Amino acid sequence: MAGGAKLWGGRFAGDTDPIMKKFNASIPFDQRMWDADIRGSKAYAKALEKAQLVSTKEMEQILTGMDQIFEEWSTGVFLIKPEDEDIHTANERRLKELIRAPAGKLHTGRSRNDQVVTDMRLWLRDAIKTLTDNSLQLISTMVERAAVEIDVLFPGYTHMQRAQPIRWSHWILSHAVALSRDVERLLEIKKRVNVLPLGSGAIAGTPFDIDRELLRKELGFDGISLNSMDATGQRDFIVEFLFWASLCLIHLSKMAEDLMLYSTKEFSFISLSDAYSTGSSLMPQKKNADSLELIRSKAGRVFGKEDKEAMFDCFDTVQAVLQVTTGVMSTLKINQSVMEAALSPDMLATDLAYYLVRKGVPFREAHGVSGKAVFAAESQHISLNQLTVEDLTAVSPLFGGDVSSVWDYRSSVEQYRAPGGTAKSSVAAQVEHLRIWLTKQTQ
Amino acid sequence: MAGGAKLWGGRFAGDTDPIMKKFNASIPFDQRMWDADIRGSKAYAKALEKAQLVSTKEMEQILTGMDQIFEEWSTGVFLIKPEDEDIHTANERRLKELIRAPAGKLHTGRSRNDQVVTDMRLWLRDAIKTLTDNSLQLISTMVERAAVEIDVLFPGYTHMQRAQPIRWSHWILSHAVALSRDVERLLEIKKRVNVLPLGSGAIAGTPFDIDRELLRKELGFDGISLNSMDATGQRDFIVEFLFWASLCLIHLSKMAEDLMLYSTKEFSFISLSDAYSTGSSLMPQKKNADSLELIRSKAGRVFGKEDKEAMFDCFDTVQAVLQVTTGVMSTLKINQSVMEAALSPDMLATDLAYYLVRKGVPFREAHGVSGKAVFAAESQHISLNQLTVEDLTAVSPLFGGDVSSVWDYRSSVEQYRAPGGTAKSSVAAQVEHLRIWLTKQTQ
Amino acid sequence: MAGGAKLWGGRFAGDTDPIMKKFNASIPFDQRMWDADIRGSKAYAKALEKAQLVSTKEMEQILTGMDQIFEEWSTGVFLIKPEDEDIHTANERRLKELIRAPAGKLHTGRSRNDQVVTDMRLWLRDAIKTLTDNSLQLISTMVERAAVEIDVLFPGYTHMQRAQPIRWSHWILSHAVALSRDVERLLEIKKRVNVLPLGSGAIAGTPFDIDRELLRKELGFDGISLNSMDATGQRDFIVEFLFWASLCLIHLSKMAEDLMLYSTKEFSFISLSDAYSTGSSLMPQKKNADSLELIRSKAGRVFGKEDKEAMFDCFDTVQAVLQVTTGVMSTLKINQSVMEAALSPDMLATDLAYYLVRKGVPFREAHGVSGKAVFAAESQHISLNQLTVEDLTAVSPLFGGDVSSVWDYRSSVEQYRAPGGTAKSSVAAQVEHLRIWLTKQTQ
Amino acid sequence: MAGGAKLWGGRFAGDTDPIMKKFNASIPFDQRMWDADIRGSKAYAKALEKAQLVSTKEMEQILTGMDQIFEEWSTGVFLIKPEDEDIHTANERRLKELIRAPAGKLHTGRSRNDQVVTDMRLWLRDAIKTLTDNSLQLISTMVERAAVEIDVLFPGYTHMQRAQPIRWSHWILSHAVALSRDVERLLEIKKRVNVLPLGSGAIAGTPFDIDRELLRKELGFDGISLNSMDATGQRDFIVEFLFWASLCLIHLSKMAEDLMLYSTKEFSFISLSDAYSTGSSLMPQKKNADSLELIRSKAGRVFGKEDKEAMFDCFDTVQAVLQVTTGVMSTLKINQSVMEAALSPDMLATDLAYYLVRKGVPFREAHGVSGKAVFAAESQHISLNQLTVEDLTAVSPLFGGDVSSVWDYRSSVEQYRAPGGTAKSSVAAQVEHLRIWLTKQTQ
Repeated sequence: MAGGAKLWGGRFAGDTDPIMKKFNASIPFDQRMWDADIRGSKAYAKALEKAQLVSTKEMEQILTGMDQIFEEWSTGVFLIKPEDEDIHTANERRLKELIRAPAGKLHTGRSRNDQVVTDMRLWLRDAIKTLTDNSLQLISTMVERAAVEIDVLFPGYTHMQRAQPIRWSHWILSHAVALSRDVERLLEIKKRVNVLPLGSGAIAGTPFDIDRELLRKELGFDGISLNSMDATGQRDFIVEFLFWASLCLIHLSKMAEDLMLYSTKEFSFISLSDAYSTGSSLMPQKKNADSLELIRSKAGRVFGKEDKEAMFDCFDTVQAVLQVTTGVMSTLKINQSVMEAALSPDMLATDLAYYLVRKGVPFREAHGVSGKAVFAAESQHISLNQLTVEDLTAVSPLFGGDVSSVWDYRSSVEQYRAPGGTAKSSVAAQVEHLRIWLTKQTQ
Repeated sequence: MAGGAKLWGGRFAGDTDPIMKKFNASIPFDQRMWDADIRGSKAYAKALEKAQLVSTKEMEQILTGMDQIFEEWSTGVFLIKPEDEDIHTANERRLKELIRAPAGKLHTGRSRNDQVVTDMRLWLRDAIKTLTDNSLQLISTMVERAAVEIDVLFPGYTHMQRAQPIRWSHWILSHAVALSRDVERLLEIKKRVNVLPLGSGAIAGTPFDIDRELLRKELGFDGISLNSMDATGQRDFIVEFLFWASLCLIHLSKMAEDLMLYSTKEFSFISLSDAYSTGSSLMPQKKNADSLELIRSKAGRVFGKEDKEAMFDCFDTVQAVLQVTTGVMSTLKINQSVMEAALSPDMLATDLAYYLVRKGVPFREAHGVSGKAVFAAESQHISLNQLTVEDLTAVSPLFGGDVSSVWDYRSSVEQYRAPGGTAKSSVAAQVEHLRIWLTKQTQ
Repeated sequence: MAGGAKLWGGRFAGDTDPIMKKFNASIPFDQRMWDADIRGSKAYAKALEKAQLVSTKEMEQILTGMDQIFEEWSTGVFLIKPEDEDIHTANERRLKELIRAPAGKLHTGRSRNDQVVTDMRLWLRDAIKTLTDNSLQLISTMVERAAVEIDVLFPGYTHMQRAQPIRWSHWILSHAVALSRDVERLLEIKKRVNVLPLGSGAIAGTPFDIDRELLRKELGFDGISLNSMDATGQRDFIVEFLFWASLCLIHLSKMAEDLMLYSTKEFSFISLSDAYSTGSSLMPQKKNADSLELIRSKAGRVFGKEDKEAMFDCFDTVQAVLQVTTGVMSTLKINQSVMEAALSPDMLATDLAYYLVRKGVPFREAHGVSGKAVFAAESQHISLNQLTVEDLTAVSPLFGGDVSSVWDYRSSVEQYRAPGGTAKSSVAAQVEHLRIWLTKQTQ
Repeated sequence: MAGGAKLWGGRFAGDTDPIMKKFNASIPFDQRMWDADIRGSKAYAKALEKAQLVSTKEMEQILTGMDQIFEEWSTGVFLIKPEDEDIHTANERRLKELIRAPAGKLHTGRSRNDQVVTDMRLWLRDAIKTLTDNSLQLISTMVERAAVEIDVLFPGYTHMQRAQPIRWSHWILSHAVALSRDVERLLEIKKRVNVLPLGSGAIAGTPFDIDRELLRKELGFDGISLNSMDATGQRDFIVEFLFWASLCLIHLSKMAEDLMLYSTKEFSFISLSDAYSTGSSLMPQKKNADSLELIRSKAGRVFGKEDKEAMFDCFDTVQAVLQVTTGVMSTLKINQSVMEAALSPDMLATDLAYYLVRKGVPFREAHGVSGKAVFAAESQHISLNQLTVEDLTAVSPLFGGDVSSVWDYRSSVEQYRAPGGTAKSSVAAQVEHLRIWLTKQTQ
């Protein structure tokens, strides 16, 4: 290495090992911040001019040069050179080619430390905006689907075993509610991301009259960093974004896991659109729920550490998952008759216990009685509602002819009218709540 | 198993494998929620009475029984029995022994699903309060220490190499600021933790007239859950608490890592109090910074999954780390003379470049010139400030006699007056900012 | 603290913070190594005597004292005192109480560094033996079950969709084979665990004539460590054990996931024994596959870091999972008629393509033709084998009356006679292979 | 989508969502297996011919076509088309363009399931060979450096505090020994990777007379898979490779951490070659140990899951780290005088205790006495060896004039002659042991 090309050119004598160079280079991925880097540098040029570290003319040369670089990136003609180790050196190298001497003044009082973190925050702020929009679109799709299909009942499962009859919309909304918390979390993170570090130098701050408030306004940040070492040294804003992504993917993964089950031949509750299915290279009949598998598997993707590479990977993954999930949720077809046929009388065993509770039996006792009825039905290889009143009174004398009223799935579901329950009125209230929430988010 | 003892007693025929029983039991750790469980059940008894599912007298029996159980736990005489698989069955089993029949009514319309998650949220809400207090105490210790020692300079490091002279207080505050963000995050999490799930049953909701608003008020929750399946099925409130703990521990770990370095014989910047050091069983001279090692290592502790065990482990770890760190930070002694002696002229190479910038040289060029000066000094085996004006003018004719003004660490530090910088005024402003913030947190 | 009690007693002046003390104490968990610690000290006493660092009489006193301590632990009367920070100090403290002066010579040339790691290796060696036995018992259970139920066919799934008819035993053996690799891995790890570190001191080695070969033989190690710093500083033997546990749990988790699916009402292929099921506190009819859920969930348990606590937790978890899985696999009942009824003609679409391949059609083309047949059947809402010869010849003229031979599940399965396939002969060969392998392992 | 292009073309009606397509595509990364895929297909064509599923002429067409595709990839002219979702479809698509009809026969009895995993195993086998070579080169560099610099003493540290004088070579070898275990682990993994899955179809096996033994020989595998479901469904061979990489990186990270410390200005034990250092864009004097930082940080890189992408990323990372570490270790310069000057008398406090042990004092007592001497020296602000015989006899009457012999670092080190110790003979034996081991590895 001749020495002149690198930023720390003055001092070094030996050559850099090429593997080391490659190891250290980030431009293959950080070029995605080209736009953020240009915006940051333009704002900084203005602050330099205000501090009289560049003349007005020099500032204008820098701004014009940066605009041209913007144009080159936008049109795909910007040429990365082998010595460009990151997007920051690439843009500045190009600026020097375009405007010569004044380019060398741009980095005055700035360090790559504060420059990099400023660019990352600008980029991530935009990325968060995109993911918020994607999430809201998915939630909206789910809420409206829940509104339309509110009358469909199907089995609610716990531990993968049939538990109680619920509305299909109740299931949809349970996932939409979880996603709405993710949106809230993302907005909280955005507050902490949207803080200006520029003007922090390497660690000590800036020794010049750089107007950090001017920088903040130019770049649309909400506030400025409080301590320069913290500003350049900590990456917790990335770490919390990566965590957010993991959590959001866990939520989507759980939903996908349920849908995979519902789309098995044995359940047959839903059919995926062909647009979200794939086939087999060997077995002609296969129609695989690959979209769901991919969504589910992404939750296992661990997002590295507090670095740029992880940030980009994370964004791409979550965005694709959100979009595919939106596609899946808006196109899948449900098979209402199969869903309702899957409701079985044993799922009303709790209702049978409640029948007794309403006659004054303590619940623990009623639970035991109902359990014995289940056992009696299983012993006779009949379903629970096929037990005669005689069979039932053998278990508890409190059973009477009116017990037949228990065996109605729709009535069962309608009992759950308390807030959050699966009765129609309650589910409708949830739909309404989320519609209002969605409207607020998009204002 | 006789069948009668377990909650699902009515139906089962076979015996449970003892290993399976142990595998499934959570009482060794979830007994820590004994208090939360009692509070939850007392509130529920009141809601049952309002819904006329228990009589006023039965409610009073339940409340009195629960008070007695509270007394037993408080005084350490509560006896866990082998068949108590978790804290919830233990408390209810004991209630039955105390008040007989009415105990069997307590679980009416409630499921262990909503009971467990209610208890966890109550417990975690209190735990968050404790950790917030611990964090604030640590931050306060650090801020006041920074205020007192504001005049001490020492080397700021990047990549473990001496970078620029900074204030010791600047270093302290960089960590205090990071911790203050952790407190803000914790309060955001608390909002989401403090939501009432009780009344969600297993998944479908409650079929009785349970007044969830009454429950919310009784238990001091901020809101009630929107969807019953979400309320009983999701554990994201735990996951985000575990993440918070990891992030906070990372921050403390980074601080401990710096302190470990500063406490080596070779740096000798700080001495730990004996209260936070240990010795060696073999080497009589050893005084190990074990407290710092422990703090550092805890960041590597991965907190399992979305479960109770992880929640408890996590709380204990973070609480201990916060307390020990507070102890360390309040008792360590600094060695000001060693710290200031570690400042070396090469750390002012940036200032040398700025000297030229102030004479109109573009920074990139000035950086190269200063680098050549560093190289010249190294070649002559002298320190940078020992270069003569002749040596310097050989590198750039712009150097003059006034260059000697560069070699003053205190003046160097005082340049960084912009917000967030390491000048005395700027650090004092940070101290003040954090003091105000602390006051707000504890109001 | 007066200073005298701790091992590094001579030098310290201040008191240790009680939180720090607790933070640093490992005796709550490392007391499990009491036996290993005694064995290590007894061997060391012999080496000291050979090196003439203790007299024969002193050695005998130490050995007798240690035997008494062994007795105390065995009978549960050993009393841990508050100042015992770990098992090593506890045993030595007790030795001193029992035999006075000579106890102080036991640690000559030994450091807690090499003592601790020797104890860990002794303990882990035994733990690995136990887990190997547990694994072999599970594999044996699975192999013998596969041998007995070799005639049962059921659907093989990929992506949770029905793929091809296979033998139930083929599924069992696929998991047994994976577990057999885990046993092989465990034995490889054992080689690296079973290496003597004692005699490495803190880092530099031992300055006395300690006969490390004598220690090796006394303690049954396979070899001695090559470098004393490596011996006391590295914990990769723990890390690889933790990894092994994670991998083994992943294998068991995958198996449990399949079984959970097969035990849903919708699949109904298997029924768990009551001994491995639990009920619901709310829903009387529920019989949950809790054992399977627990097995599945343990794979998510991340085993901390390279420390003792992780090692113990890991062992307990894996041992319980292996034992419960053995219980589950030996007691579950299969429902052969439901399994075979789940085979559906579309699962023979590959066979339909092969019918054409055997008539000379390139497979890619045959796959397309068979796909069209599947589509035709779906369009007519009939199953694939209900297509007439006319229907089929409309898709390809090569179909003839002999196509009916395709629709036989048992014949289909019998085609897969190549090694590793699902034909009876091939599955029987796998059973035999594993039986021989098992015999070798237990010799 | 017209349907014709995709492998499962016959059945689907709708179009695939483009996001889903991109989500599902693996060709951006799996094209690295182009060579493995060609080798696998050529071997499979031979097996098809032997099974009379293709004619000899067709086989030759396939082989010739594949050779041409090999040529295209080798020369960089192979053109990936938008519909090529993975390397397997790309190569087969190209084959069809080149040889038409016979290309359609290549996939007979093969599934993408067994094809993919065969290619992965072929690729990984070669990758393991490369990493083994890289590791051996690094170990060899370290061993030879240790041999040359065997006479250099420096402080051994525990808990980052000076502990005992050791040889610099002893430190080097402690890391070389750990890496030699990694090589052994990698060879064990290779055994399990090098097993042929081809002939397993999707899950059931192959229904044709595919000679799996022929495939094994053609492709150089050590054995064939025992069960077809296990062969196509498990990815533990990837998981254990990823774990291996993590462990190896942890070892290199620990070494880099030590070196970073040794290269601080405060320690100044070593200087990195410029080829492995970088500078600062702001501070002209900075020479950062970036290579060490990168090596250290890679240990934190978590390698996703059991997939191809993780496998490739992992390989690239470990290979780069091994090569850079080799470069660092072969070019760094040590500063022997600074290293030896860092030895301080308090590091001989253990020797002082041993002086008493040799006079019959029990070690625990001697340790306490020596601790008191350390305390006495500290109180007088002198170093331990400056205590007079009077000072020492005040602590223990057993001290005599011959105590001065203790204060010799080289004699101290020479005491550790037992195997694994830091005496010259012992370190030389370690060098010799590793040289022999290296020779064996490369035979």
